[in-house]
Amino acid sequence: MLTDFKKHIDKFAQVSDEEFDEIQKFFDIKNVAKKENLLEEGQLCRHHYFVLEGLLRKFYINEKGIEQTTEFAIETWWMTDNIAYEHKIPSEFYIQAVEKSKILYITQDNQEMLLKAFPIMERYFRFVYQRAYAAAQMRVKYLFSLSKEEFYFQSVNRYPEFAQRIPQYLLASFLGFTPEYLSEIRKKRIS
Amino acid sequence: MLTDFKKHIDKFAQVSDEEFDEIQKFFDIKNVAKKENLLEEGQLCRHHYFVLEGLLRKFYINEKGIEQTTEFAIETWWMTDNIAYEHKIPSEFYIQAVEKSKILYITQDNQEMLLKAFPIMERYFRFVYQRAYAAAQMRVKYLFSLSKEEFYFQSVNRYPEFAQRIPQYLLASFLGFTPEYLSEIRKKRIS
Repeated sequence: MLTDFKKHIDKFAQVSDEEFDEIQKFFDIKNVAKKENLLEEGQLCRHHYFVLEGLLRKFYINEKGIEQTTEFAIETWWMTDNIAYEHKIPSEFYIQAVEKSKILYITQDNQEMLLKAFPIMERYFRFVYQRAYAAAQMRVKYLFSLSKEEFYFQSVNRYPEFAQRIPQYLLASFLGFTPEYLSEIRKKRIS
Repeated sequence: MLTDFKKHIDKFAQVSDEEFDEIQKFFDIKNVAKKENLLEEGQLCRHHYFVLEGLLRKFYINEKGIEQTTEFAIETWWMTDNIAYEHKIPSEFYIQAVEKSKILYITQDNQEMLLKAFPIMERYFRFVYQRAYAAAQMRVKYLFSLSKEEFYFQSVNRYPEFAQRIPQYLLASFLGFTPEYLSEIRKKRIS
């Protein structure tokens, strides 16, 4: 199970098996049930989550009382409320398991201790954040440049493994439209 | 001038004056005129830019031929097309000086050499990307949750130094509306 985490580190930084044995001690593992919340609005955001198995989503509840999904994370993706996590402040978000999931997690204090003890992990996390930031920048471009319909089909084409696993009503929420609208444009494309 | 860069590093990582003398050799400085392009669509994105003095913006030209601004950077902010820079591929963006500016910049190869020679800079860039990613995540939330009008007034209130320096037509573009609409909501607020 943790071999997937080791493999992910190996993509960006060189860590020996002996070092990895020490590194993994900074983390814990948690099994979460489908629809279980790892974080709720108003709670201090204490953890950074790495998906070993399963699927997480991040959402907030808007002024109409509706859950607005802003992000998903599948295997080998990291997820947290980064501002709340770094500054140890209450979160405006929920993080919830979409499927039964197995999650590796670390506290902010442990992450800081890990980085002091194994500076090579700065390189690993630098790449993690760099890639996540680059993806977020492209997302802003797409939010401006693509119609909702184009954005949906591009998301499905670029991330087919997502589109198959994510319930349609959550995908609709992530894309910023109603399940009815999503069902309409899918029918249009098929016909 | 470079003391501002040194101060910015000091916020996140400890670097001695002797180390900084070596670190700065990996960078070059460029003076750019107002409206000069540092990067154009279709060019390989070779540089990562740090604003010493002035103001940059990033934009792309949409299918209607209109410049859509997606980002600004003022003093001590980094800017590049991160995907194109990391993968050394042609960019879909322009990066342009909004004001006469003084820019510190580094190539991707030099940044990689710098990180090998001074691993402490991994920590610095990890923080740079972590904060930028956190800000981008909040921006996605605001794009969903705020009306265009709320987003405008929130941006002006949170970043008054931006609102004063950025020409109104560029601010309108960044917020995704026309200069006419911006002028309308500003009048409404004043009256």
